[in-house]
Amino acid sequence: MTDHTVRAYDAELIELRQRIAEMGGLAEKMLSDAMQALLKRDTTLAQTAIVADRRLDLLQREVEDRSVLTIAKRQPMASDLREIISAMRLASDIERIGDLAKNIAKRVLAMNGEYPPLKVVFGAVNLSTLVLAQLKDVLDAYARRDLELATQVWKRDDEVDALYTSLFRELLTYMMEDPRNITFCTHLLFCAKNIERIGDHATNIAETAHYLITGELLPVERPKADTTTLNPKHVAEET
Amino acid sequence: MTDHTVRAYDAELIELRQRIAEMGGLAEKMLSDAMQALLKRDTTLAQTAIVADRRLDLLQREVEDRSVLTIAKRQPMASDLREIISAMRLASDIERIGDLAKNIAKRVLAMNGEYPPLKVVFGAVNLSTLVLAQLKDVLDAYARRDLELATQVWKRDDEVDALYTSLFRELLTYMMEDPRNITFCTHLLFCAKNIERIGDHATNIAETAHYLITGELLPVERPKADTTTLNPKHVAEET
Repeated sequence: MTDHTVRAYDAELIELRQRIAEMGGLAEKMLSDAMQALLKRDTTLAQTAIVADRRLDLLQREVEDRSVLTIAKRQPMASDLREIISAMRLASDIERIGDLAKNIAKRVLAMNGEYPPLKVVFGAVNLSTLVLAQLKDVLDAYARRDLELATQVWKRDDEVDALYTSLFRELLTYMMEDPRNITFCTHLLFCAKNIERIGDHATNIAETAHYLITGELLPVERPKADTTTLNPKHVAEET
Repeated sequence: MTDHTVRAYDAELIELRQRIAEMGGLAEKMLSDAMQALLKRDTTLAQTAIVADRRLDLLQREVEDRSVLTIAKRQPMASDLREIISAMRLASDIERIGDLAKNIAKRVLAMNGEYPPLKVVFGAVNLSTLVLAQLKDVLDAYARRDLELATQVWKRDDEVDALYTSLFRELLTYMMEDPRNITFCTHLLFCAKNIERIGDHATNIAETAHYLITGELLPVERPKADTTTLNPKHVAEET
């Protein structure tokens, strides 16, 4: 490659990184806005999170288009190809995170007029605080090529799952105590599941960062401690 | 490229297509097994679906590794690059479908001993029948490069969403009628959501098939008729 080609190519990689950074920031803000909307019963803020998802979808498309174009034009080898493939994967995970945050915001609108007591909302907010920290860390790890931080995020997913499981049981208990709690608790259950899924995508991003930095894939089995589908005894005990 | 290189390259693309076909067949079988397990309260069949997911994960890795290698070695242009990128996308969607089918199977195990009445299970089974048909059609559309069929699947997703919405309301009603229904109805709610999500992935595959065949992307907005998060009135009416 000539110097000029190399510079043009580097510029394309930098553009990709910037798009990914923008997507990451947007997804974090969407989750944070959706949870604040839930906490403050703020339907305007919920709308903000819902509308932001469109920008995220368009950015993902742009990352995909640019990636495919760059591969076709530059014919990159090994580590550069890895960077482009990783950017496409990240864009896909972040776009899904946006979808999940948007789902939470939509449930805030659906719950309009029938809000759950703050006590049960706090459980979901705590879960989202943990997941937001995971998301920030893993996006930093990716941007700074920090293998140790990426690995920490990957391992910490079991804390998210454990908190989700305990929230799941708490919500079931509320539903059983009073049938009038069922509608909003069902919405909260899905909110909690969406947050837990965002945590899974943070783990995916950690795996992509690991692949980007080392060229190696992490083991297929991730740490898993969401036992709501595994441990009928504990769920049943609360009935 | 020499004739020999072209043949080796074609062989790689054929290998990729075969892996995708195997993954698709496996994912269909996992969903079908998980639903049969739910219907027949068959925990052995549920285990079969859970174990099969490992094979699917490994196949996805293989598709990714082969795709990256092929891009690096062959430096493909335009339509061939599109085929490889599409294979990676499909592998990712099918792997997620496998995860969702596995989640359903895990819930069958979690419900062990406390099974819902067949009447409510049928609602979930009907939803899965519709989604399985979508999945079969879209995998056929991809394999045969059938643009019309892919577009049909893409448009038909609103039927899946409508059926899911009606099932969601039915399950809420059961929960409100008797608190003893809450645990299994919650499991069924998540099963239904997993099936509806599989339908979304079938739509993603339709979009990828469209991109593969035409080189153009479909509009960002997909048909959407899951109103459980949008229409508080209808949900509330059933409380």
